[in-house]
Amino acid sequence: MDVYFSPLACSMASRIALYEAGAPARYIEVDAKTKRTLDGEDFFAVNPLGLVPTIRTDDGEVLTENAAILQYIADMAPAAGLAPSGGMARSRLQQWLCFTGTELHKALFVPLFDPKTPDEAKARTLEKGESRLAYLNTYLTGREFLLDRFSVADAYLTIVLSWTRATPEIDLAAHPNVKAYLERMRARPSIAAAFALESPLFRAEVARRKAA
Amino acid sequence: MDVYFSPLACSMASRIALYEAGAPARYIEVDAKTKRTLDGEDFFAVNPLGLVPTIRTDDGEVLTENAAILQYIADMAPAAGLAPSGGMARSRLQQWLCFTGTELHKALFVPLFDPKTPDEAKARTLEKGESRLAYLNTYLTGREFLLDRFSVADAYLTIVLSWTRATPEIDLAAHPNVKAYLERMRARPSIAAAFALESPLFRAEVARRKAA
Repeated sequence: MDVYFSPLACSMASRIALYEAGAPARYIEVDAKTKRTLDGEDFFAVNPLGLVPTIRTDDGEVLTENAAILQYIADMAPAAGLAPSGGMARSRLQQWLCFTGTELHKALFVPLFDPKTPDEAKARTLEKGESRLAYLNTYLTGREFLLDRFSVADAYLTIVLSWTRATPEIDLAAHPNVKAYLERMRARPSIAAAFALESPLFRAEVARRKAA
Repeated sequence: MDVYFSPLACSMASRIALYEAGAPARYIEVDAKTKRTLDGEDFFAVNPLGLVPTIRTDDGEVLTENAAILQYIADMAPAAGLAPSGGMARSRLQQWLCFTGTELHKALFVPLFDPKTPDEAKARTLEKGESRLAYLNTYLTGREFLLDRFSVADAYLTIVLSWTRATPEIDLAAHPNVKAYLERMRARPSIAAAFALESPLFRAEVARRKAA
């Protein structure tokens, strides 16, 4: 499998899932700004939206969108138990993947990361985002994971929550269960390994951009 | 099953799926502004996020988030063929549910609908949204549906695209395949029936708000 990723982007959830599954993959780094791979390939030719993660399966199928890719990886390695196989437990997994993708990733972090977002709009985004974090904080009371064991939804939520380091406007101190969850997840071997690998790549990306 | 909905909101996709499945449900209208049901029930007590659709299954489980609910309904009525049962076809369904939820619903329409979004931010939202509609337009060339037959992803995409009527900033004339798709879907009996039922409810909601 080929995995197109950008360092510390949401594609890191795919890496974590693959580490958990013990599945090999070829990781292809995409510069988040230029949308070219480090080998100079035009990433828009692979995914016209230019979004990571994008995977190419061993059958040559190009699949996009986090919720689809993470469930694909989980189902590819059922022994790793990264997703319930069906029933209401699977619906709950989809609920949390969808919540993380829509309410946190797209509604909260994307506007904060966009340098073109006006300050007034950022304030409005934070106001709405706070209610989502409060909801999550309540849900995580007494829970170790989103479901009853580690799942691909935790991989996705962890990378999205980790972006609070880059968005000082969001203070997780107000949401202690969320803060503790993030710290717990970051200590998990697969996640710690993913950060150890991608953090230097991210710093290199930033350095390249400054040099350009 | 109980289905909490607001007229012409994304919850209409759940109604369309249930019509297609021939499955009965108790539809409970939630005022989009006050977050109370028409019977005066506090909707936040059902879903702390106050978001429709929210369903309560016959087993009493409360499930939220479009992608989860639509797949739940599809799997509840396999004979209706509203979702592929597995494999790459199911991954594609999840890809389109996720694309519609993140790139169109949350990233494009939510900021346009929010009266507190500054004009400058709206312009930026439209700029990004245009590229998503262009991508969809290319994909829909020569296709009747998102997959090879009608699925819950079409139900969701149709209601989201129908919001272009309320957002004059988006002109689908620039995306003729998307425009034709929307017209085709709106003529489908289940979808026409859902609009026929919910459009008067929407007008009544607007009238109530003006009277308040």
